[in-house]
Amino acid sequence: MNNIFSYFLPKDVKFFPLFEKASSNLIDMAALLNQLVDADASRREKLCKEIETLEHKGDEITHQIYLELSKTFITPFDREDIHALGSALDDIADYIHGASNRILLYNVTDITEPIKKLSELIIQGCNDVDKAVKELKNLKNIRVITDSCVRINSMENQADYVFDQAVANLFDFENDAKNIIKYKEVLSALETATDMCEDVANVLESIIIKYA
Amino acid sequence: MNNIFSYFLPKDVKFFPLFEKASSNLIDMAALLNQLVDADASRREKLCKEIETLEHKGDEITHQIYLELSKTFITPFDREDIHALGSALDDIADYIHGASNRILLYNVTDITEPIKKLSELIIQGCNDVDKAVKELKNLKNIRVITDSCVRINSMENQADYVFDQAVANLFDFENDAKNIIKYKEVLSALETATDMCEDVANVLESIIIKYA
Amino acid sequence: MNNIFSYFLPKDVKFFPLFEKASSNLIDMAALLNQLVDADASRREKLCKEIETLEHKGDEITHQIYLELSKTFITPFDREDIHALGSALDDIADYIHGASNRILLYNVTDITEPIKKLSELIIQGCNDVDKAVKELKNLKNIRVITDSCVRINSMENQADYVFDQAVANLFDFENDAKNIIKYKEVLSALETATDMCEDVANVLESIIIKYA
Repeated sequence: MNNIFSYFLPKDVKFFPLFEKASSNLIDMAALLNQLVDADASRREKLCKEIETLEHKGDEITHQIYLELSKTFITPFDREDIHALGSALDDIADYIHGASNRILLYNVTDITEPIKKLSELIIQGCNDVDKAVKELKNLKNIRVITDSCVRINSMENQADYVFDQAVANLFDFENDAKNIIKYKEVLSALETATDMCEDVANVLESIIIKYA
Repeated sequence: MNNIFSYFLPKDVKFFPLFEKASSNLIDMAALLNQLVDADASRREKLCKEIETLEHKGDEITHQIYLELSKTFITPFDREDIHALGSALDDIADYIHGASNRILLYNVTDITEPIKKLSELIIQGCNDVDKAVKELKNLKNIRVITDSCVRINSMENQADYVFDQAVANLFDFENDAKNIIKYKEVLSALETATDMCEDVANVLESIIIKYA
Repeated sequence: MNNIFSYFLPKDVKFFPLFEKASSNLIDMAALLNQLVDADASRREKLCKEIETLEHKGDEITHQIYLELSKTFITPFDREDIHALGSALDDIADYIHGASNRILLYNVTDITEPIKKLSELIIQGCNDVDKAVKELKNLKNIRVITDSCVRINSMENQADYVFDQAVANLFDFENDAKNIIKYKEVLSALETATDMCEDVANVLESIIIKYA
């Protein structure tokens, strides 16, 4: 490992705690999403509001990351990478919120199996994102990060498969075109949340490639 | 501020004028888009052609930026950032053109309120993009840039909200699935134009983070 | 040309062969896609499987590129650019596979002219991607790369046009909303494959801008 890096790294007390806050927040959001897809229609609005509250919390963390970046001269790794990681974590939050919002807005009362399956994959993805992000501060065990990235990629492949099959089933078994569009929109937001987990993995991989 | 930067900066007479041309062009395109959504069906084709003409003009400006980049040894900021800014400005033009093109191609005769509202938000976004881009050449008042970026982000949040509500309303009140698809496509192109404004803000923020 | 670059460049025997493998693989995938859109329904499943096999082959090449990147200290150009090029080539493969998969999954039995036209444009795009990538190793004739990039951009403009007209025609002549959605999804995957070719061109342009 780069010596200069190992020298500065332990001293950073600004960025790593913020990244960890952001990734913990994603785990909470993913947990609420999974409650939402299992909940009675009556509890959905409340859960959706809670997800929105966490999304705002995430926005503030992202903002703090950018603010620190503008005030800090020596950063633990490239400023661009800090910016990219902050914004990639924020994107996951946006799509979890977007998916839950669509379920509510479009009155998707019947939560289908693919919706539940994708929500579970999002939990897996956020757990691996969190695991990798927490390892970033010491980089002693890079394997932890690369393993998480591999699992995130495989999770995203599964999500693609679930999405494709679900849409094919809509064409085969759903005759109301309006419903096809609605469900496709919800499934697509969920699938995009897993894409955003993959984007985080890509940023992490490119950070590792440079510094490790 | 970085001394080397302030030394080279005032000397650049190539990139800043081109960026300003590109952002002024976006203001013109956004103005035409707003005329288009207020115009009689009979005038739409003409306005759409004018938007296309400006889109081609934008393409040429982008091309000139890349060309200058290949000929210039010392650039006012990182070559990658110049490339990224040029292509992000170009993306806004593409989606304004794409939205107007869909209105015409899909015979969207009834221009709804959300279409008008999104078009107005695009004007706001392009104005802030232009304001921030024009401040880039001296960086004396970074606050002008960051304030524009904040407003662009808030504009994009509003656009998300308008889009989501508009699509939910289509599901509730439009029974012709074909119309749902058509309107969703037009709204989506408009909303993506605001996303592209946010991309420009992201590029500007990451430039500021590095140099300011 | 940068001297350090010309010094290191001829020595690289790792990355350039992998990039060339990836771009040759894209040509094979594009050829199979074009067989698929001309084939009887009975042969489609087999061709789709073959495309999937090549997609997996592409995944392995991408993985090898990343692996080499983690093991190699001196790279022929910036590590980020190698990463970006590897992942952009991979994206083309994903969308060619995605398009063929949708044709099969959604039982799109009637292969329309725009589907065939977009498939042909994808072949053109992959040929130019391959041509440009093969020139990357010596950079003696940068014109070959920039010409390919120009052709890729023009091919992508054509693809946009074909896509827009095709969707407009669906609205005009297809009354089954389900079919509109299906065809739009297939056309959109094909069109996105051409967008990904453009992304490769953008990465190549930004590499040239830095080193040439």
